[in-house]
Amino acid sequence: MTRQLQTAVIGAGRIGLVHARNLAHRVHGSQLVAVSTANAQRTAAVRQEFGEDVTIYPDLPTLLAQAELDAVVIASSTGAHRANIEVCAAAGLHIFCEKPLALSLEDCDAVIAATNAAGVKLMVGHVRCFDAGYLAAKQRLEAGEIGPPIVFRAIAGDQDPPPPSFADPHVSGGLIIDAGYHDLYLARWLMASEIVRVYAEGGALVDPAIGAVGDVDNAVVDFRFANGALGTLFVSRTTRYGHDVRVEIVGAEGALHVGYLRRTPINILTRQGVYHDVLPDSSVRYAAAFEAELQAFVDCVLHDTEPPVTGADSRAVVAVGVAATRSLHSGRPEALPPAL
Amino acid sequence: MTRQLQTAVIGAGRIGLVHARNLAHRVHGSQLVAVSTANAQRTAAVRQEFGEDVTIYPDLPTLLAQAELDAVVIASSTGAHRANIEVCAAAGLHIFCEKPLALSLEDCDAVIAATNAAGVKLMVGHVRCFDAGYLAAKQRLEAGEIGPPIVFRAIAGDQDPPPPSFADPHVSGGLIIDAGYHDLYLARWLMASEIVRVYAEGGALVDPAIGAVGDVDNAVVDFRFANGALGTLFVSRTTRYGHDVRVEIVGAEGALHVGYLRRTPINILTRQGVYHDVLPDSSVRYAAAFEAELQAFVDCVLHDTEPPVTGADSRAVVAVGVAATRSLHSGRPEALPPAL
Amino acid sequence: MTRQLQTAVIGAGRIGLVHARNLAHRVHGSQLVAVSTANAQRTAAVRQEFGEDVTIYPDLPTLLAQAELDAVVIASSTGAHRANIEVCAAAGLHIFCEKPLALSLEDCDAVIAATNAAGVKLMVGHVRCFDAGYLAAKQRLEAGEIGPPIVFRAIAGDQDPPPPSFADPHVSGGLIIDAGYHDLYLARWLMASEIVRVYAEGGALVDPAIGAVGDVDNAVVDFRFANGALGTLFVSRTTRYGHDVRVEIVGAEGALHVGYLRRTPINILTRQGVYHDVLPDSSVRYAAAFEAELQAFVDCVLHDTEPPVTGADSRAVVAVGVAATRSLHSGRPEALPPAL
Amino acid sequence: MTRQLQTAVIGAGRIGLVHARNLAHRVHGSQLVAVSTANAQRTAAVRQEFGEDVTIYPDLPTLLAQAELDAVVIASSTGAHRANIEVCAAAGLHIFCEKPLALSLEDCDAVIAATNAAGVKLMVGHVRCFDAGYLAAKQRLEAGEIGPPIVFRAIAGDQDPPPPSFADPHVSGGLIIDAGYHDLYLARWLMASEIVRVYAEGGALVDPAIGAVGDVDNAVVDFRFANGALGTLFVSRTTRYGHDVRVEIVGAEGALHVGYLRRTPINILTRQGVYHDVLPDSSVRYAAAFEAELQAFVDCVLHDTEPPVTGADSRAVVAVGVAATRSLHSGRPEALPPAL
Repeated sequence: MTRQLQTAVIGAGRIGLVHARNLAHRVHGSQLVAVSTANAQRTAAVRQEFGEDVTIYPDLPTLLAQAELDAVVIASSTGAHRANIEVCAAAGLHIFCEKPLALSLEDCDAVIAATNAAGVKLMVGHVRCFDAGYLAAKQRLEAGEIGPPIVFRAIAGDQDPPPPSFADPHVSGGLIIDAGYHDLYLARWLMASEIVRVYAEGGALVDPAIGAVGDVDNAVVDFRFANGALGTLFVSRTTRYGHDVRVEIVGAEGALHVGYLRRTPINILTRQGVYHDVLPDSSVRYAAAFEAELQAFVDCVLHDTEPPVTGADSRAVVAVGVAATRSLHSGRPEALPPAL
Repeated sequence: MTRQLQTAVIGAGRIGLVHARNLAHRVHGSQLVAVSTANAQRTAAVRQEFGEDVTIYPDLPTLLAQAELDAVVIASSTGAHRANIEVCAAAGLHIFCEKPLALSLEDCDAVIAATNAAGVKLMVGHVRCFDAGYLAAKQRLEAGEIGPPIVFRAIAGDQDPPPPSFADPHVSGGLIIDAGYHDLYLARWLMASEIVRVYAEGGALVDPAIGAVGDVDNAVVDFRFANGALGTLFVSRTTRYGHDVRVEIVGAEGALHVGYLRRTPINILTRQGVYHDVLPDSSVRYAAAFEAELQAFVDCVLHDTEPPVTGADSRAVVAVGVAATRSLHSGRPEALPPAL
Repeated sequence: MTRQLQTAVIGAGRIGLVHARNLAHRVHGSQLVAVSTANAQRTAAVRQEFGEDVTIYPDLPTLLAQAELDAVVIASSTGAHRANIEVCAAAGLHIFCEKPLALSLEDCDAVIAATNAAGVKLMVGHVRCFDAGYLAAKQRLEAGEIGPPIVFRAIAGDQDPPPPSFADPHVSGGLIIDAGYHDLYLARWLMASEIVRVYAEGGALVDPAIGAVGDVDNAVVDFRFANGALGTLFVSRTTRYGHDVRVEIVGAEGALHVGYLRRTPINILTRQGVYHDVLPDSSVRYAAAFEAELQAFVDCVLHDTEPPVTGADSRAVVAVGVAATRSLHSGRPEALPPAL
Repeated sequence: MTRQLQTAVIGAGRIGLVHARNLAHRVHGSQLVAVSTANAQRTAAVRQEFGEDVTIYPDLPTLLAQAELDAVVIASSTGAHRANIEVCAAAGLHIFCEKPLALSLEDCDAVIAATNAAGVKLMVGHVRCFDAGYLAAKQRLEAGEIGPPIVFRAIAGDQDPPPPSFADPHVSGGLIIDAGYHDLYLARWLMASEIVRVYAEGGALVDPAIGAVGDVDNAVVDFRFANGALGTLFVSRTTRYGHDVRVEIVGAEGALHVGYLRRTPINILTRQGVYHDVLPDSSVRYAAAFEAELQAFVDCVLHDTEPPVTGADSRAVVAVGVAATRSLHSGRPEALPPAL
């Protein structure tokens, strides 16, 4: 392996470009050499931004055949994750895959098996585990500042309508998996216990088009953890005021709140009252965390250590999301299958 | 009826004394003439505070026989509400009753029938409907500032262990009714829709003694409203940091948050960080609202108008609480019975 | 003296009515028996609100001749304070006088001498010393939580144009005394040291009419305390967003902030951002403190104790205000005269 | 000029390393090729961090003789700025110089003349002009959201004792220039008017060692702007709770507050109250702004445009700082000399 990890990004959508920029300019020990995209407009955008230093390939087989690589970042659509991971693993490349790993436990199991068989590393994009706010919460929990955690309480509010392709829950996994995934892994990670039962209520309360394709735009989900702790999540595609993501952990001796609603640290005071702006989306809120997670991936490859977020971690989250989505439709609490 | 409403308070516990002080000193058009309590210590406390202006009776029959009254405030234990209301109604007195009206729909129906038959007013202590914060929220919702409300999200956190008598859920109604009642009526009132289905998860997560008597100390409750809207409540007896009561309403066009965690408007900045104090309990947070609700009761009697909170309102809340408590034990969502 | 202190309010403007209500309905041990006002409209308002229980007199001599009184609350214009106090003291009445005691040290000295000679109590309306927020700050300072205080930093922002009569600085004392008085006494009280030098800059920056009568509408004032500590005050008649009053004390080991900009504990979140309302004026912010200060006055009369705020306290504040106002015009720092 | 600007950093202290990292890894169009430092420990640190890609020179003449450069970032001690700028300008290099440009107007004038004569660009490190918070404030001011600005109110609080060399005010320029410089340029920039008169009070209130060398550790400064507006600054080396930097602008129609006291967006709620952490220093608060300002410098060199912050801008700020420091000792308001 060369001293600079030779990396490629598969997919050049919004999140693919975020990863490409970090690999090219910010992550130490990484060199971005290739991007794969079949989309003409995105090809032009990558060319414009990265110039001749990065080669653009129209598909993954061509990229794998021609580029000299150590590792790939997979930022394709979720439906393509399994196929992409299997071929990259077969090519002996280390893999960072965007969340969720897949939409079914079967696909999760397959890619975990494929990367294990190939002896390559697999890390999944649980970006908030690299955010200073959640890390501070984790440390304070572990330090016992609020006693044993007994309740997880989260809001996952986003203002963006899903892109048209994501309107189809077979593509997105549905609201809970698509928009609530980050909070589901925060729940396991921060509470340090597996979720064993879920109950969900939801509806297409704002956007009838979402209901027409069989999805919901707002939902509440209740959790029961293995250690008896409780949880509740409100997940929404229609928080019109911005990107509102907050977590509260209640412990036996206190509580922790993590959240930041502002874009800039400014208050405006007028006759109408006092107001401040709101974060528009996750890319602003988690810019530093996106960089830190790729640094962690590059470091674990360079130093041959265990990835901080594994395929099994993502599989456990997908299991919760699938069960909660099932509850949405069954009208009953749903038990989780045993972990791998 | 005299110009000053002649009033008595039945029960001289913490909340009874709050009402007694307001009737004696703050509410216009009211005169406190009597208090009923069988407890020697409380008798002394009332004597000390109110002097000779207020007569103390050892029981309700004696009070009704000897005092000249227009109205009573019932602040006895919930289990005594039905009997107290029935005898006061029979005596032709207007009645303000602390929440909850009763612990069963049967008892609610009985006291509503009794007061209707007697032609006396019955108002129930939904104190937060008289708080400036919730009133402002209600007005802004009705003004359409956030569009139609689609999600109700609340926390009802208290730090106090229940008094020993309330450790028995047959006395208190259990955690959800006892500590969550205020949020249940806020849910109906602010969302302007009835709750039709509930699901609850809970546990004795902090205090095993609460579990030993068949109750829980922390619970999450999910609601489905008649208009399709969703709700979620976290209710706790063990928020060690203070009285943490907050409501968030999410609408199709924005959101409203109501809550105030501070006791005094002061921040302390030291090497350890920035901190502020926390409200210790509801009596500090709602002091003005307790006064306003009794004023509303006295006004509705003096001007012969409809009480702003009726027995039917409380019955509807009790129905939700009973169903949520049933869900806690059944492990299933529970549908609400039709309203009266 | 009767068990209920027989009290009268001199003047029935906005603040006079606040005091009248507290004496009539809220303060224990006080009975409001008379109000003095020459204004027909205010006479009608008092009649309407207090009915026959309170006698209204057209002038102070008539009131003193006819009412049986123990104490008076003087809420007349500042220019009339000296004459009113002198005649009430001569009548042997205990006196609560609104701030400022007078606009000159000479007048302050005269009324202090008059009340001393008559052996009656004189208390001045330093209302914020009775507010829970400032009291908590005082206690924490005295407990040493932030070490010795070294800097006082305040904002005294009000949105109200002065009433027409107050546009004349000879009537109001000018911006610094009129609108900054409360912060000047907070400075002395919280820092526990006398102010020995001041420097002020100001201008009629928003309202030319204020400049035309020789006053300013915005000013900054620097203080030097006897113990070497520093201070700075921004005082304004034109904070269009509401009543913005905040104090920060910096100590050698930390800092304290006191302030509350909200009217109700509610946040509105919309596409335009997050906003909350603002306190409109001091009557809302300090309602409980106005009641507590009159209770303290009544208590000190009933129990014959020292008033918690004396004439000498107000004289010291007037001295600072006069010196700061002089600096505004001299363009130089101004030393304070020695205390009495 | 090559496509990648060849850059060097003069001085490898804390701020020099910040600039070196940004030039090496983050700023587009820049390549860091050299660092100059005579300090053995810093030489080792630079070697460790940047490896063989960056050549380290023991002094500026050697660096200028051997390295092929387009531009330099001067992060040496302020006392060395003039000599360093003169020799770099003579070598035809574009110059980014840390603030303050110099400690005297004479030195400012000399370096402005030297860079003009050499035809090289000179930009000064007014880093907060590149921070999202202050930029948002500037834009809202220019959009007229609060009307014409009439009062500037700032706090510049830092917890760090000055490094030993800076204990000498002849080296640091004294508290107001050293620790207040950023707020002085924010004052001019945000108020869009020059400062024409200043008055300062200060003292060695916490650290007698600072007093012993003729400096103060805390000061308040009053400003008068050319357009009549007012200002007040509290500057401190002893805010023990962290890096507390805030600006409030009051306008004729409202106000703007800029500030952010937290390190992470987390609240801890315990029996002791609610607390959050505090920014430890400016490097955390302004990390993105430090990068943006160097990007602006590289861009203005590459595209041959005017630097966004000029030598004249810094000279105007130094003039205010010098006058305020003079006032501290004279006890009088001090007028500013005319601008260049």
